[in-house]
Amino acid sequence: MKNKFYQYIQNLQDQICKGLEDTDETAKFREDIWERPEGGGGRTRVIENGAVFEKGGVNISAVHGKLPDSMQKLVNVGEADFFACGLSLVLHPKSPMVPTVHANWRYFEMYDDDGKVIQQWFGGGQDLTPYYLFEEDAKHFHQTCKTACDKHNLEFYPKYKKQCDAYFWNAHRNEGRGIGGLFFDYCKANEQMSMENWFNFVTEVGNSFLEAYVPIVEKRKKLLYSEANRTWQEIRRGRYVEFNLVHDKGTLFGLKTNGRIESILMSLPPHVQWVYDHHPKKGSEEEKLVEVLENPKNWIAD
Amino acid sequence: MKNKFYQYIQNLQDQICKGLEDTDETAKFREDIWERPEGGGGRTRVIENGAVFEKGGVNISAVHGKLPDSMQKLVNVGEADFFACGLSLVLHPKSPMVPTVHANWRYFEMYDDDGKVIQQWFGGGQDLTPYYLFEEDAKHFHQTCKTACDKHNLEFYPKYKKQCDAYFWNAHRNEGRGIGGLFFDYCKANEQMSMENWFNFVTEVGNSFLEAYVPIVEKRKKLLYSEANRTWQEIRRGRYVEFNLVHDKGTLFGLKTNGRIESILMSLPPHVQWVYDHHPKKGSEEEKLVEVLENPKNWIAD
Repeated sequence: MKNKFYQYIQNLQDQICKGLEDTDETAKFREDIWERPEGGGGRTRVIENGAVFEKGGVNISAVHGKLPDSMQKLVNVGEADFFACGLSLVLHPKSPMVPTVHANWRYFEMYDDDGKVIQQWFGGGQDLTPYYLFEEDAKHFHQTCKTACDKHNLEFYPKYKKQCDAYFWNAHRNEGRGIGGLFFDYCKANEQMSMENWFNFVTEVGNSFLEAYVPIVEKRKKLLYSEANRTWQEIRRGRYVEFNLVHDKGTLFGLKTNGRIESILMSLPPHVQWVYDHHPKKGSEEEKLVEVLENPKNWIAD
Repeated sequence: MKNKFYQYIQNLQDQICKGLEDTDETAKFREDIWERPEGGGGRTRVIENGAVFEKGGVNISAVHGKLPDSMQKLVNVGEADFFACGLSLVLHPKSPMVPTVHANWRYFEMYDDDGKVIQQWFGGGQDLTPYYLFEEDAKHFHQTCKTACDKHNLEFYPKYKKQCDAYFWNAHRNEGRGIGGLFFDYCKANEQMSMENWFNFVTEVGNSFLEAYVPIVEKRKKLLYSEANRTWQEIRRGRYVEFNLVHDKGTLFGLKTNGRIESILMSLPPHVQWVYDHHPKKGSEEEKLVEVLENPKNWIAD
């Protein structure tokens, strides 16, 4: 399973980078291959200063070795060997009219002393962070997520949509990081789903990414915007930084397993502002966004 | 002691704000009084878009009530009532030639069921974060710290200088946040120092702040700088954000005790950049700074 999934994310990285370069029309991803001293490594691909994408990364990695102390608590085990691989992407568009997107698909294994797999699971998801709210974009993104889920289990979309809102909750701000999407974790073999079934589900979601995101980019990338729109985007990016550095378990996992810092922190936006006690004007477009961040919505009628 | 120290930091806040406004010559601090639902509150003073200070805050607070669960672990006790007060300041100058500064002086008490004080201690310090290194500034700052310390105990400066380098260590980057200063914590009554002695020491350091920082501002605030200097400053500010959100116990304390978010996060810089895998040029002024951040120096000859 680990080889099959790593093969999959290698191909997916190629596909996604190609799709994003096509919509950017200007910039190309640069590639950095890195090794982890304790075992494994990754292939980081970063795009900067494009026509559409100001900064972003589409990274894969496969790491293995002894589970670090700090991680043992997190996954509730003692000493063990582990293997983890995944694809992580974050894209920060230049235009405040184009939403930031994040996605991740990952596979994790742990072994006993004889090297036998004692635990294995998938995790992942994809979620959207707009700076201005276009309801039809939110609906398109969620509908694409739902279509992928529904092919496998009708309960997945409502369940993983809710988990996404819960996970990407900026607790100290009492608001969501964005307008959600899917989040699933610890997807282990059970009576309904074999690991093979989970593989099919996770790759279905992975395959839906470009369809979920690129049409939104295409629709919004040529819109005009003002300096005030841009300031708002940079302030909201501050909240993105706060979530990733204070709450995000993925970032934590990377820092604690001695991942490559530049690959982990490629998720941070290029230009960011913090303004003391900033509040959007009553009735403004900015306030409308904050409204749905504070009160996560169902974007698709039941 | 708690009333005496709170009285002190109220006056110190006035003095420091006055001193900083005098050197800024343009902007004034705005004041926000806030209350904490669980008990206590604070007086936040923020300066923005000044001639010298792009963003900064000089805040005092006094909070009390039941020690939150999350804090019980941190101070290694069970349920207890507590009182904490302190002054915290961070100043982010506009010019990359003027260093950012941080200082904090605080007092903490815990009580048994009868309201008797069972533990009490002081903590605090002050530290400098330059973007370009002027050795004479680093020496001036450290010398002022040392002079204040030496009046109380000749061992304090070397000890608290070392603790400062250790505390403000950005572990995931393997470099210091800045060039240090003083850091002390859990200053409890012992054979050499009564609480009264600690009060005298902590207020000595507090009283030295303007003398440690303002002459540096005065010397550098008129220097010319380029856009490249400014970009470097914004990238380095990113490291400041990383430290405060990932490692800083003060920020954590604020977030966990339901402090006022805008007062806690006033420490974050106004304009910040993250550039993928950025490295200063060999032999540049930027590289010289990184060199001393990676290898903390003794700024004062023994």
